[in-house]
Amino acid sequence: MKAGFIQTHPVFGALDTNIADAVRRITKLDAGLIVLPELFSTGYQFRSRKEALALAEDAATGKAASHLIQTAKVKKAHIVAGFAERDGRRVYNSAMLVGPKGLVGVYRKAHLFWDEKRIFDRGDTRFNVYNIGAIRVGMMICFDWVFPEAARTLALKGADVIAQPSNLVLPYCPAAMVTRSLENRVYTITANRVGTEERRPGKRLRFIGLSQVTAPDGRVLAAAGRSKARSASVEIDVRLARRKLITPVNDIFKDRRRDLFEL
Amino acid sequence: MKAGFIQTHPVFGALDTNIADAVRRITKLDAGLIVLPELFSTGYQFRSRKEALALAEDAATGKAASHLIQTAKVKKAHIVAGFAERDGRRVYNSAMLVGPKGLVGVYRKAHLFWDEKRIFDRGDTRFNVYNIGAIRVGMMICFDWVFPEAARTLALKGADVIAQPSNLVLPYCPAAMVTRSLENRVYTITANRVGTEERRPGKRLRFIGLSQVTAPDGRVLAAAGRSKARSASVEIDVRLARRKLITPVNDIFKDRRRDLFEL
Repeated sequence: MKAGFIQTHPVFGALDTNIADAVRRITKLDAGLIVLPELFSTGYQFRSRKEALALAEDAATGKAASHLIQTAKVKKAHIVAGFAERDGRRVYNSAMLVGPKGLVGVYRKAHLFWDEKRIFDRGDTRFNVYNIGAIRVGMMICFDWVFPEAARTLALKGADVIAQPSNLVLPYCPAAMVTRSLENRVYTITANRVGTEERRPGKRLRFIGLSQVTAPDGRVLAAAGRSKARSASVEIDVRLARRKLITPVNDIFKDRRRDLFEL
Repeated sequence: MKAGFIQTHPVFGALDTNIADAVRRITKLDAGLIVLPELFSTGYQFRSRKEALALAEDAATGKAASHLIQTAKVKKAHIVAGFAERDGRRVYNSAMLVGPKGLVGVYRKAHLFWDEKRIFDRGDTRFNVYNIGAIRVGMMICFDWVFPEAARTLALKGADVIAQPSNLVLPYCPAAMVTRSLENRVYTITANRVGTEERRPGKRLRFIGLSQVTAPDGRVLAAAGRSKARSASVEIDVRLARRKLITPVNDIFKDRRRDLFEL
């Protein structure tokens, strides 16, 4: 199976435009698993929680979900996409996994970055892993990368691929994902956005692009640039992700000295 | 306080030569904390457990320890050094922390790499943190880097600096230590060796050098090359290592969603 990212340049608040652009790019990409950025349909820099709630949607029945599920059906593919999720009076920075049969799972961002703490509720889903055909997929979102326990939990629960919708502004994540792939022997797919937002005066955000697919052995298999929308996909060999041997006698999971960890 | 590494080129089995060379380099380095490579006094590629036992020494009273403690006294410094440790009929790939008052602590390598599993007993010490004057030091050895839980445990227990004696042969560690520093907001000091060993036919090891000091914000403050012995030291600002904020509202320890981790 091929898997890849779509690096986009969303317009804040322009849901129809952003969704249509994503659908067009998904349709063109040769992949059975496609990862879109964090908050791909709304844009990132909400001024308030109220604004986020107004632009957010219910998982499964919202506008973005409906279009992505429809696209997944036609394409016979799975899609991971970040979106603002409304659940009653709560609003989460979430990622959905959808496939030909509809919504497969939702992950609500556990580690909120900076102003997101004012805007969103803390995620309350677990780090779950989902079977999609022959591969197992887990989700984390952007800043979750800083916490090695997030990717670790997904890998220990059997993820072959970690899909990471992102809106990165700090420069460290692309290099760190090489370490995340290596230490867990999993594929990681970071889908980031490009462009800038300055919806709050003096608080201009530049998103770094550099979306990336990394192999379980740390090789960067595909990488986007810093400023343009771009799609890429690579062949996923699940055997590589399930073989946890870094040497013939070192299984990186079995070798873990849990008896000595104090976490 | 300044801290640094000494990258050496030991000769297998030549303890007197290797110790004298290390002492000479320690004496010349302007630093209050100095990290030497893994197995700095013996060399790396033991042919058998028996050979390792013959070259190993008791912690505190061995030849390497005695010379390093004496040097630490004269220099009023602390030294971390990897050595083959004998404890009765057991033999460990260990690191000692010594200072002007003698032996401060011993760490026995938890995650043994490849043929080390044939040679050494598995470490049974914990990941401990030691106060040396104004800074707190933890130790891990080489391949422990692959397991994020090792550095994490040391950081959570209060380490400002993680000293990592190494005999690296794989290429990934120097970049990974940037992630280890960033995700824990600690200084990391990797002291590696250079040169080659082929004491078992067809099993030639080339050690990669590239010793490195990394700051809590991920900056590489000092780095050695791939083929020559080299020493370097940098100023350590413990305030940086104790300030766990990656943004004004993101404390990377307090933000950890332990309720969601499954480790």
